[in-house]
Amino acid sequence: MSTNEITQSTTAVEAANALAKMHATVTMNPLHLAKIPVQERGKIRFNEIIRVSEELVLSLGIDNVSHYSIAKAAKIPPSSVYQYFPSIAALFAVMAEKHYMDVFQKIPEIIEDINVRSWKDLAPVIVESAYDFYTQDKVSEILFLNVFLTAGVREYSVSRVTRLGLWYKNYFMLLYKKADIEGLEEKLTISLELTKSIFVRSINLHGEITLEYKKDAFVVVDQYLGEFFKHIQ
Amino acid sequence: MSTNEITQSTTAVEAANALAKMHATVTMNPLHLAKIPVQERGKIRFNEIIRVSEELVLSLGIDNVSHYSIAKAAKIPPSSVYQYFPSIAALFAVMAEKHYMDVFQKIPEIIEDINVRSWKDLAPVIVESAYDFYTQDKVSEILFLNVFLTAGVREYSVSRVTRLGLWYKNYFMLLYKKADIEGLEEKLTISLELTKSIFVRSINLHGEITLEYKKDAFVVVDQYLGEFFKHIQ
Repeated sequence: MSTNEITQSTTAVEAANALAKMHATVTMNPLHLAKIPVQERGKIRFNEIIRVSEELVLSLGIDNVSHYSIAKAAKIPPSSVYQYFPSIAALFAVMAEKHYMDVFQKIPEIIEDINVRSWKDLAPVIVESAYDFYTQDKVSEILFLNVFLTAGVREYSVSRVTRLGLWYKNYFMLLYKKADIEGLEEKLTISLELTKSIFVRSINLHGEITLEYKKDAFVVVDQYLGEFFKHIQ
Repeated sequence: MSTNEITQSTTAVEAANALAKMHATVTMNPLHLAKIPVQERGKIRFNEIIRVSEELVLSLGIDNVSHYSIAKAAKIPPSSVYQYFPSIAALFAVMAEKHYMDVFQKIPEIIEDINVRSWKDLAPVIVESAYDFYTQDKVSEILFLNVFLTAGVREYSVSRVTRLGLWYKNYFMLLYKKADIEGLEEKLTISLELTKSIFVRSINLHGEITLEYKKDAFVVVDQYLGEFFKHIQ
């Protein structure tokens, strides 16, 4: 498990904008939506609130992050936290999206390092990058691998993994005919869910993703996608 | 999806007793533990509260089940509900265990119907009985397949799936040498988690476990256990 260096390059404001764009497709409780600032000063405060909240997730635990504890730690009035985040779920939605967006910048780096010739080369990337994603920092692990998904994180979890499945499909489109890989995006999404379920089990049992469980995830995804590609070229 | 016939044969009191026995091994918030009645009259009321609560899960939705709504529906004072269930989590823990215990009575029936000669015959049973379990009634589906596990259901989820994995191993012990299947219980538990993750995805996307997703679960579990048994006999 890596140490908690907060090295994300996506800002909270960028993440909130991405969520706002998605909002049309996901039915959300309006209370779970952040109000995105327009002014530069507001943006700085918005980012700062998320930064402080991430620290509190680590120091107090996710269940103890509240408007009050954030205000106290950020040395601002609680009303300033409410101004942008009408609920704690709205805040966690932005925090989760911010961590999620960073994964998009990591995967191309991993893929560039390997010589991709068939799905056999890409299947391990799915598991490896899921592993990197969940363990890149403690906040991601807490947000995404808990048996109990926090409100705000939960609402977008289906759309998040679906987007990732679609995104992976783009890589496969460089290798196969479009007609051959129809429906592949859902197989990729299921691969991600299978990987996650093995990782969650490992964390519940051992407090971390052990090498043995990671290997199991490789085997499962390799075999599962193998079934899809069995009849293709 | 089957209709909601409440045909469970385990009583709420029996389920609460099973949880109490387990309590030594699971760290629980004392507020999440039911107080089990000793007198016959109390047992009847205890079972009745769970029965009414299950109806409310279906009619009001799981988030709207409260001490107050239960008391109103059961025509008893809220204090009588509090007397046995100091929290709603304690109530859901008993309800979940009750539904879970019924699965133990179903699986032997399924296995008796097939001629078991190798793991190849047992692997589909894992998926099939998981399917039966989740779809036996709407309450089980709501309790166990939601992305969001309710407090009380959640705390025992790791121990529940672990127990089921151990239990399945007993069937495999009739077919293999003990030394050959060391560690199999965890592979069986992971098989259950993989099955569940595919079912959850199907429900999130299609509102039910479709045949296609069920087939995918068969493929995944068959391949995953095949990897384990590759070098055995």
